[in-house]
This record gives sequence, structure tokens and C-alpha cells, in this order.
Amino acid sequence: MASYLVTGASRGLGLALVQQLAARPATEVASIVATARQPRELPSLVEASRGRIAYVPLDTTSASSVAEAVDRIQRTHGNLDVLINNAGVGSYTRGGVTEMDATDLTDVMNTNVTGTHRVTQAFLPLLRRGTRKSIVNISTTMASLDKAQTYKDMPVPAYRISKAALNMLTVQYAHALADEGFACFAVSPGWLRTDLGGSRADLSAEQGADAVLDIVREANTAQNGKFLNVRVPGWENHEGLNQYDGRELPW
Amino acid sequence: MASYLVTGASRGLGLALVQQLAARPATEVASIVATARQPRELPSLVEASRGRIAYVPLDTTSASSVAEAVDRIQRTHGNLDVLINNAGVGSYTRGGVTEMDATDLTDVMNTNVTGTHRVTQAFLPLLRRGTRKSIVNISTTMASLDKAQTYKDMPVPAYRISKAALNMLTVQYAHALADEGFACFAVSPGWLRTDLGGSRADLSAEQGADAVLDIVREANTAQNGKFLNVRVPGWENHEGLNQYDGRELPW
Repeated sequence: MASYLVTGASRGLGLALVQQLAARPATEVASIVATARQPRELPSLVEASRGRIAYVPLDTTSASSVAEAVDRIQRTHGNLDVLINNAGVGSYTRGGVTEMDATDLTDVMNTNVTGTHRVTQAFLPLLRRGTRKSIVNISTTMASLDKAQTYKDMPVPAYRISKAALNMLTVQYAHALADEGFACFAVSPGWLRTDLGGSRADLSAEQGADAVLDIVREANTAQNGKFLNVRVPGWENHEGLNQYDGRELPW
Repeated sequence: MASYLVTGASRGLGLALVQQLAARPATEVASIVATARQPRELPSLVEASRGRIAYVPLDTTSASSVAEAVDRIQRTHGNLDVLINNAGVGSYTRGGVTEMDATDLTDVMNTNVTGTHRVTQAFLPLLRRGTRKSIVNISTTMASLDKAQTYKDMPVPAYRISKAALNMLTVQYAHALADEGFACFAVSPGWLRTDLGGSRADLSAEQGADAVLDIVREANTAQNGKFLNVRVPGWENHEGLNQYDGRELPW
């Protein structure tokens, strides 16, 4: 019985995470807070959930929006077991890093790194009162510096930079909170058929969400500070660009 | 005979780089462009250099300032052999990452990552016409995700995040420019007694600068995409926090 908060929950992986959480038994998932800048189709999900899902507006780039959301969730839920920092933006640069717009890079880092920090820092009091103490940051194998050569032709330079920075944010939170029994880690959900991943991606958003939640459900202090790949049956030894074997990813 | 541009050259490592470059023979160093937001003591260095050093104002966070500097250097120097992206800011957060100010994180990333990108992108035409084609990004061992545990108590969370992001920027430039014969790499100059490093640091700014320039002088396409530690005699097997052995650093 854990309470979950998912940011960026109105589309893509975030929406799928909320849907898959809602499909899991109450013995595993007690309550779900779905946050997003815009509700989109979340209200209908909330209505169908009979009180299990709550929607709370939250713009991770706004300190006042984050503070309001914390106040509200503190009143309604008291504490929080699992924070899934999923909110983020991608940005394509056809010509690669040499053509990357500088303002765009700053914007992507601001949302994906500073936004995640702002949310994590603000919800820390609620997470400290929770029993699970899990902070899950959605990253990507494309953030791996060790594997950079593999992804060198992916036209998402700002995204990759922001997620390498996010990994360093994650590790520092893990070290800072280790003594309190936290599990703070990064997960690569796989290449998903979402607005961000496009239609030619490997997995559906539901597959990615389910694989992330399988990791989150089992997470404990042994996962603290790690960078994990999802495990998807049939994809463990895939011969293409990506394998989904559930193992630790190299930094 | 190479032409050098050093950003952030009015103090600390940047100033030491300019001073050490000026002390090297003309057969190694043809000309030095020192850029900074504020000239500080650069004008006296320029005067003493008898035309070898030029000071050009450059604020890496301003697109128009960067464009003006490119225009000016293109007119005076034509092309450029080595770009040393040294400009950057640090920021102490006594309580570590959980106490880090979100706005401060954005500012540090904007200067250290976006600023470096803005400068590199803008000077690329001049570097392409140069013979050395070297882009040197000043990083830090504290940016290593593999070694993150070693530096977990260093109260510079934003700096570490920005430099991990800078490493990913570096690697992507290296991949993008590999076919053109570039050497684009990251160097950790060591822990230096500068405003940033404080008075208890391992090495003088001059030691760090000389060690960086030794790497730069020998750099060729074999260094492209690497993350290098400086080599400082006597420090190769030091038993403290840091060793300076001139080897590749883990990401």
C-alpha cells in the first residue's frame, strides 16, 4: 500500500504510469496523485478511478506552482511514499549539437534538471514521513556518457545533456539521503511510442510504464544511487540499438 | 605556432592559462586572445606582451556579446587553432543538494553549459579554418558519475551537475566534428588555489594551467571525446582525495 505522485502525468509515459498504477491492486497502490501543467484527459481518468487518482496542477518550472501543489497534497494526503519525476521536455535538433539553439538548451535543462530538483526538494518533507521513501527520476540510456558513441546520431543533443545532468542530480540526492533510508535512482524507461519518442520507437507507453513500475515496486535502499534499465520480456538480448534487460546502466 | 583563445581569462585558471601561454616560446604559441566579462588585470598583461596577447570583452551568457567577439577576432586573427572554454562559475551550497537554490542551479548551468556551447558554436567557423582544430573544455573530476561517491561531501552540487552536463556537451561535439579532424575533449585541471577552489586546494593556478597546456600542446584526434586528468609530477600516486596522473578519467 503505497502512495504515488507522478509528474508530467497528462500524456506519454506519465499518463501511462498513472493508468498502469490505477490498474494495480489496492494492496500495491493506495493512492495516485497525477500532476501536470495541463489536465488534458486526466479529469476523466480521475472520475473513473473513484477517488483513487487525484489531479493536482503543477508546473515544475514555477516555484509558486510547486509550493501550492505541496500545500494541497499535504492537506489531502499527509505524506507520500513514491515520487516519480517524469515531467520533462525533449527537443529535436536535426543537425545535431553544432546546430543546437542555445536558448533551447537552457529551457530543456531548466525543465528537466531544475524542475526535477525543485519538485524533489519541495516534496522531501512529505517523502520523509512516508514509508517507502522512493524518488524515481526518469532518465534515458542516451544520457549515458559511457554509451555516448551508441547514440551519437540521435538528434536530441539538449535532451541528452539535460539527462546526464539529471543523473548527477540523482546521484547527489541518493548520497544526501542514504542515511535516511531513501531509494533515489534513475530509470531509463526504454524508447517509447509517445510524442517524445515518435511512432517508430521500440515499446508502447504502457510497456514502458509497466516495466518502470515493476522496478519501483521492488525498490529499496539497494537501488539507491543507481541508473537502471527496464526489463521487458523478449527484449533482453535484442540485436538492435536497445536492449531492455533490467540491469544497471553504465554512467 | 598556434593561436589560442581562452575564455574567462581575467582571473583564476583562465588568467594563469594566459600567463603560462605568454611564457611559452613563439614556436609553440603564436597568439593569445584572452576574453572575459571584465578585464581586471588583463590590460597590463596585454601591454607587457608586445602584441602577443589581445583582450576581447566576451560575456558567454550573451549571444550578442559572443557574436561581437567573433566578428572582432575574425577581423584581427582570421582563424583560431585552439579554443579553451574555461569561463564558468561555481557556487557553494553548504547543506548539499537538498539545500540547493533552484535559480542558482539554472544560472550555473546557463553559464557553464549553455555559455560553453554558445562560444563553441560561434567560433566553429574560425576553428575550422585553423590547423589544430582543438576545443578544450575545462571540467572537473567532481563531474564524474563513476567517482561520485568520492566527492559526495563536496558542497558544490550545482557545479557538479553543470560539469556532468558539460561532459555530455563535449562528447557530442567530439562525435559531430570527428570527421573533420577535431580534437574536442574535457580536461580536469585539478583542485586549484583560485577563488573557486579556495586556499586549501592542492595546486597553484600556475601548476594547473601548465598541466592543462601540456595536454593541449600534444592533443590530436586521439584525444577527441576524452575526459582527461592533468599530470602533475609528484601527484601521480598521491594518497589524498586527488591524484594527477594524466590518465583518462571515468565518466
